Amino acid sequence: MVYGNMGDDCGTGVAFTRDCSTGEHMLNGDVLTNAQGEDVVSGARTPEPIQKMKRGKLGKIYRELDRLATKLEKHFKDVQDVEFTFEHSQLYMLQTRRAQRTGMAAVRSAVEMVAEGLITEDEAVQRVPAKGLPASPGAATGEVVFDADEAETLKQKGHDVILVRPETSPEDYHGIVAARAILTARGGMTSHAAVVARGMGKTCVVGAKELDVDPSAGRFRVNGRAVKRGQVITVDGTTGRVILGAAKLVTPKAGKEFDRLMSWADAKRRMRVRANADIPADARRAREFGAEGIGLCRTEHMFFEGDRITLMREMIVATDEAGRRKALAKLLPIQRRDFEGIFEVMDGLPVTIRLLDPPLHEFLPHTREEIAALAKHAKVPAAQLEKLIESLREANPMLGHRGCRLGITYPEITEMQAQAIFEAAGHVAGKGKKVTVEIMVPLVADVRELVNQTQLIRKVAQDVFHREGRAVPYLIGTMIELPRAAVTADEIAKEAEFFSFGTNDLTQTTFGLSRDDAGRFLPFYVEHGLLPEDPFQVLDQGGVGKLIEMAVKLGRNTRRDLKIGICGEHGGEPGSVKFCHRAGMNYVSCSPFRVPIARLAAAQAALEEAGVVSRTRATV
Amino acid sequence: MVYGNMGDDCGTGVAFTRDCSTGEHMLNGDVLTNAQGEDVVSGARTPEPIQKMKRGKLGKIYRELDRLATKLEKHFKDVQDVEFTFEHSQLYMLQTRRAQRTGMAAVRSAVEMVAEGLITEDEAVQRVPAKGLPASPGAATGEVVFDADEAETLKQKGHDVILVRPETSPEDYHGIVAARAILTARGGMTSHAAVVARGMGKTCVVGAKELDVDPSAGRFRVNGRAVKRGQVITVDGTTGRVILGAAKLVTPKAGKEFDRLMSWADAKRRMRVRANADIPADARRAREFGAEGIGLCRTEHMFFEGDRITLMREMIVATDEAGRRKALAKLLPIQRRDFEGIFEVMDGLPVTIRLLDPPLHEFLPHTREEIAALAKHAKVPAAQLEKLIESLREANPMLGHRGCRLGITYPEITEMQAQAIFEAAGHVAGKGKKVTVEIMVPLVADVRELVNQTQLIRKVAQDVFHREGRAVPYLIGTMIELPRAAVTADEIAKEAEFFSFGTNDLTQTTFGLSRDDAGRFLPFYVEHGLLPEDPFQVLDQGGVGKLIEMAVKLGRNTRRDLKIGICGEHGGEPGSVKFCHRAGMNYVSCSPFRVPIARLAAAQAALEEAGVVSRTRATV
Repeated sequence: MVYGNMGDDCGTGVAFTRDCSTGEHMLNGDVLTNAQGEDVVSGARTPEPIQKMKRGKLGKIYRELDRLATKLEKHFKDVQDVEFTFEHSQLYMLQTRRAQRTGMAAVRSAVEMVAEGLITEDEAVQRVPAKGLPASPGAATGEVVFDADEAETLKQKGHDVILVRPETSPEDYHGIVAARAILTARGGMTSHAAVVARGMGKTCVVGAKELDVDPSAGRFRVNGRAVKRGQVITVDGTTGRVILGAAKLVTPKAGKEFDRLMSWADAKRRMRVRANADIPADARRAREFGAEGIGLCRTEHMFFEGDRITLMREMIVATDEAGRRKALAKLLPIQRRDFEGIFEVMDGLPVTIRLLDPPLHEFLPHTREEIAALAKHAKVPAAQLEKLIESLREANPMLGHRGCRLGITYPEITEMQAQAIFEAAGHVAGKGKKVTVEIMVPLVADVRELVNQTQLIRKVAQDVFHREGRAVPYLIGTMIELPRAAVTADEIAKEAEFFSFGTNDLTQTTFGLSRDDAGRFLPFYVEHGLLPEDPFQVLDQGGVGKLIEMAVKLGRNTRRDLKIGICGEHGGEPGSVKFCHRAGMNYVSCSPFRVPIARLAAAQAALEEAGVVSRTRATV
Repeated sequence: MVYGNMGDDCGTGVAFTRDCSTGEHMLNGDVLTNAQGEDVVSGARTPEPIQKMKRGKLGKIYRELDRLATKLEKHFKDVQDVEFTFEHSQLYMLQTRRAQRTGMAAVRSAVEMVAEGLITEDEAVQRVPAKGLPASPGAATGEVVFDADEAETLKQKGHDVILVRPETSPEDYHGIVAARAILTARGGMTSHAAVVARGMGKTCVVGAKELDVDPSAGRFRVNGRAVKRGQVITVDGTTGRVILGAAKLVTPKAGKEFDRLMSWADAKRRMRVRANADIPADARRAREFGAEGIGLCRTEHMFFEGDRITLMREMIVATDEAGRRKALAKLLPIQRRDFEGIFEVMDGLPVTIRLLDPPLHEFLPHTREEIAALAKHAKVPAAQLEKLIESLREANPMLGHRGCRLGITYPEITEMQAQAIFEAAGHVAGKGKKVTVEIMVPLVADVRELVNQTQLIRKVAQDVFHREGRAVPYLIGTMIELPRAAVTADEIAKEAEFFSFGTNDLTQTTFGLSRDDAGRFLPFYVEHGLLPEDPFQVLDQGGVGKLIEMAVKLGRNTRRDLKIGICGEHGGEPGSVKFCHRAGMNYVSCSPFRVPIARLAAAQAALEEAGVVSRTRATV
């Protein structure tokens, strides 16, 4: 079979031995901005299909080309990209090389070649580039809205909407739920908009700096154009492009070749693959993508929706422990219900729940109106509330009063969360389901912090188990996300029953680099070779990786069977996944959409370790 | 000689074998607040002086007590704190122990005991607790003012003033210069107010949260009291106390015993002791305290005074490189003059100059009026300027666009600074003085950043040396202040000619702990045993120290004679100084006031290493 292009009747051409066309998003239209600085060549040339040669006077040349190309493919055991020329019915082969192709095309050809006996299953798994697999919620088209309430109203009327905001705040949560996509001018990949949207499978472009968003005027400006409320745009979460009008979207199809390749991969890999999922719907999607557990359930995202944010704020503005406990008591049943939902979906697969992590300031209102509303609700003077909000403001919130520092200074928060977890686990276990609970303490710098929190949690567990008359097994572990935790991992492993590397924060602290602020110089760095890659995308093996290797070694020195995983976004990046395998981790956890990538990369890492290298690669 | 107290004619008493009275600040008065949470027992009891026993019917008991106390002191070779009782002319010795005493009293008694042949010089050096030495600008009394201009005016009229501000900004610089002390409600120990004031030897209390400062009303409130403009207060920079009225201040005297002990210490220590100093006046003070060089000259502090801040702002608001170069050209002669002054004062001793470090946002105006003034000066619309200032705002400035990231993205800044340094060095060398220049690149995470900056600097050096017809020797090195720099120190040492550990930032990033925000939980941590000490005061040897040891080892693996020092505030903390000695550093650098502490601690570390332990300690 020969596919390809050619020049004219008597000229040169290019032939592919198999179909290498893409099955992925094809976007066209008027590009407004490209937030991540990438651009995709549209590849709009429409060559003469080579099949036309079959008939007529070129039929003989076509058959000769087909024969030679097939021979070349068999010899090199891979799809070939062949250049040829012909003159006076004489065919000349000019060059042959491994064909460039998209991930899904590579899957298809690899599985076909196994069926044809050309390569082995291991070789097929090795050959498909994991990063070629589709990895994000992709693109979405809809009407521009600037307000969360309006997004909700229009959604109810059946419109597809795209929520455009200068930056998002907790108040926008219901708008994010309603929208097909989120577009913001400020904020980074770790902002709530981004994390929440990704978790829900929404398309999301954040920090598109060229955008000048003016919600009160009902328009945003970009590169000399104005886009008004109600206009249709298309947003591509993969490339960060924003396109005026409805671009054509193509949904990539996985198909049975993909399933077959994945089953070969699953049989080969040593590491487990889990997903990061915060709510039952995410957990369900994670399982669809093949996740074998939840590696990170971020409990704070449960507190942004609807009434919850109000209760959370009640807790924060309370002036004493009694006031906090009162508000927490109202949050308890809500949190418990979320956990029940997740445990039911996961049905015995392990679920790692991280205790409250972000600084409390993130939950508070920002605008004067919102502050006034909260003051009225909480029955405190607005001026006093403003002062409280101001006092919670931090110079460097990433390095501030967050993570286990919250649970230590406000033990009632940890107690409520532990109670919700154990009660939920007990209820689901009571229905005859299996529950595997792992409680994860965030931002530990010193083992004493972990000891403090495990004592609290174990006490709550005892109380709940006693009261409910049913115990469930559970583990308590910690994030390794600070350099100090990595270098004192031997101490921490005395208390921790598992480690999970939070490589987002570990990268931030190891480099002294705020992900939300890096946009002003990190692209420059990558462009000028000061860093080979964005370390938030691809794990920095030479620096962050050294700390990880050290922590694995120290941790297992103390506790030989220590379960170790990763739950940063690197858990879904192929090169980083392979690093995790080599470092001896038990699992990686990543966004649901990246689970297939991680499964394939983990298998490739196992095969590389075993020395199985594609024969084709070895001979060429 | 017996000093002490006693109860009554027939009772118990306490005797000290030598004078243990303090020679340090005695503060009394109405304490308004205690910002650092410490409290000092005022020790106001006024006992009957024991000398009174000499005469009269107790004379015999006194002589017996004197004989026994002297015997005890000789036996234990240290000042004794003896409890005794007497009854019917019969003396009973109840207890003897090493006397608690202040640092300066310990110096005096140790030097006396060497003179008396009781102990050796080494033992004297070992015995005086380094942390007992006076270490800060101490306390100051003056009239409250709320405005930098007013501080300046009153100072000119001969008043002592204390500048009280909600927080300081670059505009307050001339007020800080004019004031005896600075008191702020917000900000941390690394805020400019604190760093600038400490460098100038001003008393400084920052972040006194109880203070509600209202400059427009001309008063501050604290704990239910109001203090108005013009009222006199006393501020103690050592304890953080703010006292209403003029408290009695006692200046500690060093005296010749102190000089003698220091000369013994200097003969024993292996490490050099340098000081952190930013302007010629600081450099002069540093030398008075015995500094053997400048370990950290923070060039940014040069840009806050008078017109300089305006020029700096011109540079920042320039929209292109040409505009930045124009403003930098005006800063160049000012910067050069500062460096000339420092080189002249240091006269051949090494001077380590750190290139611009803080985020540019720190130099920009904050209030509407200041923004309007700058807009007028820079001839840009105020709205545009506001937008620029907003765009430079960072979520986590500590982890943002600062350090060498500035010099890499705006090479013209590094070029100007290097030119100023080399021209200044050449001019001073031209006057026949020796100049030892060390240029330090801050916030390096990867060796490629350092390569980028050294290439720039060496190019400027060549140009200047060629133009001026005179070359000066210089070194280029880097701060090790990020965990990534520590774990890749072998790579970095390929380019760096010296390392200086910036342990303030290294502690922040290793712990993931913002110094300016830690106040909300760090005191709780120390109080509840979650951390043994504030890691910003006492170097965390188990965590940060591990990274330092690793970096020293890796760095010297690459470059055997690598010069290594420390320039964080830990360089003046005795336990941390000893750690630096053990880690193999060549020098420590600290604030001028802490230089004597560092000299003594460095000597003690050397003696400990040599196994010389005070005999008294060994026997007791």
